[in-house]
Amino acid sequence: MVTGTRPGADTDRHTALLARVHEFVRERVAPRAEADEARGRFPRDLFDEAATLGLAGFPFDRGEGGGGAPTPVTLGAIEALASGALALGMGLSVHHLATGVVLRHAHPGPREMILPDLLTGRRLAAYSLSEPQSGSDAAALDTRAERDGDAYVLTGTKAWVTHAGAADVYVVLCRTSNDRTRGISAFLVTADTPGLHFPPPERKMGLAASPTGQLVLDGARVPADHLLGEEGEGFPIALRALDGGRLGIAACAVGVAQAALDRAVDHAREREQFGQSISDFQGVQFMLADMAAAVAAARALFHDAATRRDRGESYGQLAAMAKLTATDGAMRVTTDAVQLLGGAGCRADEPVQRWFRETKVLQILEGTNQIQRLVIARGLLDPR
Amino acid sequence: MVTGTRPGADTDRHTALLARVHEFVRERVAPRAEADEARGRFPRDLFDEAATLGLAGFPFDRGEGGGGAPTPVTLGAIEALASGALALGMGLSVHHLATGVVLRHAHPGPREMILPDLLTGRRLAAYSLSEPQSGSDAAALDTRAERDGDAYVLTGTKAWVTHAGAADVYVVLCRTSNDRTRGISAFLVTADTPGLHFPPPERKMGLAASPTGQLVLDGARVPADHLLGEEGEGFPIALRALDGGRLGIAACAVGVAQAALDRAVDHAREREQFGQSISDFQGVQFMLADMAAAVAAARALFHDAATRRDRGESYGQLAAMAKLTATDGAMRVTTDAVQLLGGAGCRADEPVQRWFRETKVLQILEGTNQIQRLVIARGLLDPR
Amino acid sequence: MVTGTRPGADTDRHTALLARVHEFVRERVAPRAEADEARGRFPRDLFDEAATLGLAGFPFDRGEGGGGAPTPVTLGAIEALASGALALGMGLSVHHLATGVVLRHAHPGPREMILPDLLTGRRLAAYSLSEPQSGSDAAALDTRAERDGDAYVLTGTKAWVTHAGAADVYVVLCRTSNDRTRGISAFLVTADTPGLHFPPPERKMGLAASPTGQLVLDGARVPADHLLGEEGEGFPIALRALDGGRLGIAACAVGVAQAALDRAVDHAREREQFGQSISDFQGVQFMLADMAAAVAAARALFHDAATRRDRGESYGQLAAMAKLTATDGAMRVTTDAVQLLGGAGCRADEPVQRWFRETKVLQILEGTNQIQRLVIARGLLDPR
Amino acid sequence: MVTGTRPGADTDRHTALLARVHEFVRERVAPRAEADEARGRFPRDLFDEAATLGLAGFPFDRGEGGGGAPTPVTLGAIEALASGALALGMGLSVHHLATGVVLRHAHPGPREMILPDLLTGRRLAAYSLSEPQSGSDAAALDTRAERDGDAYVLTGTKAWVTHAGAADVYVVLCRTSNDRTRGISAFLVTADTPGLHFPPPERKMGLAASPTGQLVLDGARVPADHLLGEEGEGFPIALRALDGGRLGIAACAVGVAQAALDRAVDHAREREQFGQSISDFQGVQFMLADMAAAVAAARALFHDAATRRDRGESYGQLAAMAKLTATDGAMRVTTDAVQLLGGAGCRADEPVQRWFRETKVLQILEGTNQIQRLVIARGLLDPR
Repeated sequence: MVTGTRPGADTDRHTALLARVHEFVRERVAPRAEADEARGRFPRDLFDEAATLGLAGFPFDRGEGGGGAPTPVTLGAIEALASGALALGMGLSVHHLATGVVLRHAHPGPREMILPDLLTGRRLAAYSLSEPQSGSDAAALDTRAERDGDAYVLTGTKAWVTHAGAADVYVVLCRTSNDRTRGISAFLVTADTPGLHFPPPERKMGLAASPTGQLVLDGARVPADHLLGEEGEGFPIALRALDGGRLGIAACAVGVAQAALDRAVDHAREREQFGQSISDFQGVQFMLADMAAAVAAARALFHDAATRRDRGESYGQLAAMAKLTATDGAMRVTTDAVQLLGGAGCRADEPVQRWFRETKVLQILEGTNQIQRLVIARGLLDPR
Repeated sequence: MVTGTRPGADTDRHTALLARVHEFVRERVAPRAEADEARGRFPRDLFDEAATLGLAGFPFDRGEGGGGAPTPVTLGAIEALASGALALGMGLSVHHLATGVVLRHAHPGPREMILPDLLTGRRLAAYSLSEPQSGSDAAALDTRAERDGDAYVLTGTKAWVTHAGAADVYVVLCRTSNDRTRGISAFLVTADTPGLHFPPPERKMGLAASPTGQLVLDGARVPADHLLGEEGEGFPIALRALDGGRLGIAACAVGVAQAALDRAVDHAREREQFGQSISDFQGVQFMLADMAAAVAAARALFHDAATRRDRGESYGQLAAMAKLTATDGAMRVTTDAVQLLGGAGCRADEPVQRWFRETKVLQILEGTNQIQRLVIARGLLDPR
Repeated sequence: MVTGTRPGADTDRHTALLARVHEFVRERVAPRAEADEARGRFPRDLFDEAATLGLAGFPFDRGEGGGGAPTPVTLGAIEALASGALALGMGLSVHHLATGVVLRHAHPGPREMILPDLLTGRRLAAYSLSEPQSGSDAAALDTRAERDGDAYVLTGTKAWVTHAGAADVYVVLCRTSNDRTRGISAFLVTADTPGLHFPPPERKMGLAASPTGQLVLDGARVPADHLLGEEGEGFPIALRALDGGRLGIAACAVGVAQAALDRAVDHAREREQFGQSISDFQGVQFMLADMAAAVAAARALFHDAATRRDRGESYGQLAAMAKLTATDGAMRVTTDAVQLLGGAGCRADEPVQRWFRETKVLQILEGTNQIQRLVIARGLLDPR
Repeated sequence: MVTGTRPGADTDRHTALLARVHEFVRERVAPRAEADEARGRFPRDLFDEAATLGLAGFPFDRGEGGGGAPTPVTLGAIEALASGALALGMGLSVHHLATGVVLRHAHPGPREMILPDLLTGRRLAAYSLSEPQSGSDAAALDTRAERDGDAYVLTGTKAWVTHAGAADVYVVLCRTSNDRTRGISAFLVTADTPGLHFPPPERKMGLAASPTGQLVLDGARVPADHLLGEEGEGFPIALRALDGGRLGIAACAVGVAQAALDRAVDHAREREQFGQSISDFQGVQFMLADMAAAVAAARALFHDAATRRDRGESYGQLAAMAKLTATDGAMRVTTDAVQLLGGAGCRADEPVQRWFRETKVLQILEGTNQIQRLVIARGLLDPR
């Protein structure tokens, strides 16, 4: 496995914390992953343990109560969690995404009330943009927020919400006017808001421990100051948040792919056929080498994007490339990892086939890879 | 969908029968597939219905009581079944494989007793070559058959047996001497033989309706005339049978890929995003085109191999190419089909994700695709 | 190499002729290929020799004076020629394409005058559809044909004409009215028509022996009865011809890929590294196997399309798939063939790198592979 | 195009120099590339100009007279040169590789005499490891160095030497004993040494301006102190140098791929078909996006490896991954870039087809990509 100090993890504190995260993953997270998938519940207790390590607020300013970690270090932590349990890695990524929106855009009252709990992980955050009829075409969303006195009344159905029913706080994108993109606004909605319903989560081909479901807003009243930013600013807020979210998914995909590669290497070392270790066969070696190169390239790319982000440079196009490269790469890696394990790789209790299924979901989540290509092409053809 | 008369289906009878198979698949097989997967049982009743159509003995000589179908026609039927329920398509392919061995190599007594039931489908056949420690290296098998009077006593554990516990008759490869390849012999073992045990089947990532499991031979006594061919002839018998089996898997993979393509086309026509059908987007069109070309090429290749087989030409290398091309192609096609359906493609009750999981298993079954490459390379480097 | 009787070559006569073509390629064509590329001239003398074998009119009805070969057999001959010299294989394919238009659509006078010479190969035919500004968008062509008494006056510049300046007869698509597709008409233009000019051919990255260039029509007067079909029928005539042309290109690509594969196999057998033949290395074996499977699948696919054509079935979508699969496959095969030869593969006099360059051109010719994908997608989404 | 400050270019001086290199490439290098390829000569005058910018000794310690550039910055300069003229980018990379060996291993006398000229670029360096019979199996080299008084007498034929005949100084690997790897020693050989012959360079499919050829040692007498390091230390010296060389090739490949991507983007913006810019077609956009992601991932990977190198970490496995990823990626990118330009992309004077040919050579140079896979696999299976 390619390891070593990661770029950006330049302070001893961060290096030490990453080491503790790896230990936590090995000892606590990985052994639980299968069981959590089987019962189909988010491992909130493990999220809480991760929070005690400081991960809930890891990337945010220390002045705000965050951990002050550079983005590459934060992504290193997410990668590590995802290599043990994807639901946890994705969970942290989504929590950061939504928390970042609150930190940057919440009005003072709700900010003071909620942000500290998000930074410590006492509350779990979620983010809700998609709707049943508006997936890739995010701006086509239909959920309405109507001003009514000192509140907004939210009505509609959001879809594919990670942590639906498990989170304490939701960042929800709604329509406040008919202008396609300028008519969208973001709201902070707490889980106890009357009129919020969560149908049973989707039964998915993988990632059962990361519940994904609808959030039904049946005239849910949200205090007016729970508007995030101003009316009509929701779409740019959502897009900006997605840039960061894509880096998180990229890190998750690399974590899963690294886990699959490690398992394939171990299997190749142990399995004998034709009187020798299968790792002696060049055909096996070449497969492993291609897998390792795909993992390393994807990791380097999200690190590069993350470094640019921390330098204040534009990084949206690179984030889309990182999401595309990491998840397409992980799909190839996990497909080949199952192949290398052969029949054993198909067993229901074998993690390598779980990673294969989960990776397929990652090619679709937070902007399908087709949407990433459009984002990248736009950057090539119409550079700012 | 590319249809039309298939090469080889030159008689009206075969054309008519293929049409009835397609109807059977549409009306009886496809609607049951999900439920059979969920309960994890082989749909023996549907196999029996297929048998009443004449499929159990379809490829075998009419003089023997078979259907006399050319290989391309037989594979067309298997493809059709697999497009509805892979377990059934594979089931028929395995049944043909084992039945062929019985037809060619059984001694008169057991042949008369068993073959007619195999040709009519009254009995279901299985084939057992692999062992826990000998997968790709088939000749390394350890299961012993010792002559004892008028019987052979079989002891050992076979693995990854399709239809384990569900079949009535097993073709089992055992070791009768220590010579690596010339010490292997094939036996006809009926399910009621004392000393035969079937542990619970493997829990696999897909294909639950096609039980795969161990066959434990605990001193099972098999009449001496249940030897297939002569002692020591088992390995060439096994390899020859595998050539045909590979064509069957190729047809199965094409059936699954065609089903996934059809579903992706339907979805593309129906789904709207950005105010128009997603089928209007060139990016979607290109994906569908690549999928369709992969399906058509794989189908053409197995037909080509099948045609050569029926002309009495050597076809083993082409069969390996067909298995490789069809299953690798189907893996790409089903991966992209899930992608085109997006979030909906990941739902547990959505067949497209089932096909994605099942296809992964097909890349491994009946000779991993790495073994196919070795077979092909041998043909290139050491032609006859 | 996978050989054997090809499907369709059912008569002894065709089988014998294909054998003679293979011999002709080995003895006369392949040894000349490098030299013809170097001097950049079409090997008209070899075309004439091929014509004496009966290839010029090979696929056309015997009643018309053709050879009556089924399409798969004709394509087998084109594949064989292309494996020796792509310029010759493509030359024959283009000759057939243009001759077919003359045979089906020429008015009696010019038909009697010209068709016999095309069928015997005394005259070489060419086909001219593209223009500098209308490549993929064929219907956007601008070249005008104006009726003037008993003649049409042709004015404009055609581009990327195979055999430009080398052919005796050109099928030229012109605009006779402004209706985008119904305003296009096809003309038979002999090389000696005044007003016809041929600028020096394009200098291309490969395929120098197949001259490609502009055909400048500077008020060229063409007798009115040299109209092919009726005014306004040009576009469907052109598209129908292209379907057949695509099969020809597919056969050419398979010929080149087979040649590259054969050379890579020979090299692998002969080259030693690390004290053994590199063909002993599984990494090399896997590459060869993938190459062989790609060649076999592409060949099977064009055979399948050709068989359907001869049965009178719709085959345009399959022809597009065959062109796509064969040329994309050949690009991978030739890229890997150079790789397997290593440094030696990069030498300017090494055919394997010539095939690599030529194949790139084939991915673009007669409808880029992107256009093929559109044709295929249209067939999937709007089946007749 | 993705630009911005590169990681590592943290000092203003390096940033400014990189900017001047880009300007030099745009104004001086790119306009000359085609002509230099046509005459098949190394553009020594442009190398000299690059040297006046400080590039000849760029990566070496300032205390030694070098430029003190971090490896990522040096590779940024090589990438830029290669985007204008691959021969120049590769030339600088090879010069650095050989100069580094001299700097680290030359004995004081020759070091003082030669190193300063290498660091200023007054002398051009070359590196010679391969032989006609030992390419991938470097340790199988046969060229002999026999001690004779105060000199070594070198006899044998080296092959595939970049800059053969154009360089002033050669680092040559020879055999001083029969021990396979411990019997290899490195020598510093100046171009004026009697007994050195340079047959005419190879005629290659690309990269004519980077002469590659044999170096024939016909009893060439080299002063004994021109031994680099000690007798028997040659193999580790060679391998260590190759690690750095692989990063250089990776940077070259990224430079070429970026140039091809830029040209494809420009073409897509300008070319119209079907009444609109082809850049409006999603199929074109997806191709461009995949190309851009491949370039960005390859660049990020070599930067990552370079950064680790500068931190003193082991980086050989990552360097092999970078070479593999960058050259395989560039092969896909340049193949698609020609495709996007269509017929125009195949013209002999169109750089995009030159880049396509050159990239094929890069997949083979300095360790074929198969050798890179072995290096990577060894790192996975036998970590230190």
